Amino acid sequence: MPFTTEDHPGVCAQPSRDSEGFVLNHCMLRVKDPAVALDFYTRVFGMRVLRKLDFAEMKFSLYFLHRAQAGEAVPQDVGERTAWTFAQRGILELTHNWGTEADPAFSYHDGNAPPQGFGHICFSVPELDAAVRWLDANQVPYVKRPEQGRMRDVAFVRDPDGYWIEIVEAARLRGLGR
Amino acid sequence: MPFTTEDHPGVCAQPSRDSEGFVLNHCMLRVKDPAVALDFYTRVFGMRVLRKLDFAEMKFSLYFLHRAQAGEAVPQDVGERTAWTFAQRGILELTHNWGTEADPAFSYHDGNAPPQGFGHICFSVPELDAAVRWLDANQVPYVKRPEQGRMRDVAFVRDPDGYWIEIVEAARLRGLGR
Repeated sequence: MPFTTEDHPGVCAQPSRDSEGFVLNHCMLRVKDPAVALDFYTRVFGMRVLRKLDFAEMKFSLYFLHRAQAGEAVPQDVGERTAWTFAQRGILELTHNWGTEADPAFSYHDGNAPPQGFGHICFSVPELDAAVRWLDANQVPYVKRPEQGRMRDVAFVRDPDGYWIEIVEAARLRGLGR
Repeated sequence: MPFTTEDHPGVCAQPSRDSEGFVLNHCMLRVKDPAVALDFYTRVFGMRVLRKLDFAEMKFSLYFLHRAQAGEAVPQDVGERTAWTFAQRGILELTHNWGTEADPAFSYHDGNAPPQGFGHICFSVPELDAAVRWLDANQVPYVKRPEQGRMRDVAFVRDPDGYWIEIVEAARLRGLGR
């Protein structure tokens, strides 16, 4: 073991082989208007829609988004790409229940106001200062700018549905908690 | 472009270079009792705690969990491991607000009962049938077993806080939506 985790409550130090190969594939958020959410995640965060799945009988659509890294190849064949989508890490699934976009009073719950539960998703960026300039250029609203509050190297913005997105630069967090 | 996404509403087909290197790093969920949640995610899903960060003044702790794949090396040095944690995909962050575990009436909101928002996280597994046997062996409660409902190759279970976890086998979803 390269490091110990036994000092944390409840931790199982030797997981069973039964969970070998398990991959944390995605996080699902419901969105009011897919045109608005897809514009935001593809234009500002550079994600791409790997697959859209429509469920006409149940009147919803699912969008699976992915942020490709340099040199990463995504299968062109739709069946292969679907299977590939469900084998990755770091996929964002957006669910659109048809019709919500046409209701001015409709909105989803961000999980940070009561009742609390889900908190946020987080993007790691190569340079926090450059990312802040880019987010500002796109008028993305902040929950907390990096220079506000106690945690100076962390920002929180809101997506169009109000969900919080944390923005961090990995190298600047090396000393966190020490 | 290996495939087209322009047919989806709002999609930006040519993202700016300003978002190059952005990585969807984690999803944060609040948990009532870290001993219970860490037992569940480390024992049943084979995750490991990369870092625990305590914020005594604000009375909360953060646990960053990761499911290592075969041959994947995690840095031993704590600073390097912290930076590494924030550069990965597929991290699960659990937040523990101190004291909630001692309040029998306390619980978090799963996002699927009203008010809705967040839906679920999803683990991809090598073999769905084997995973179901393993989850059954651990008495993990189901929202939907694979043989229930319309989507026969997808299961949903609940974690100890009630959050939904989707379980999929990528190869069995190749034909989804076709």
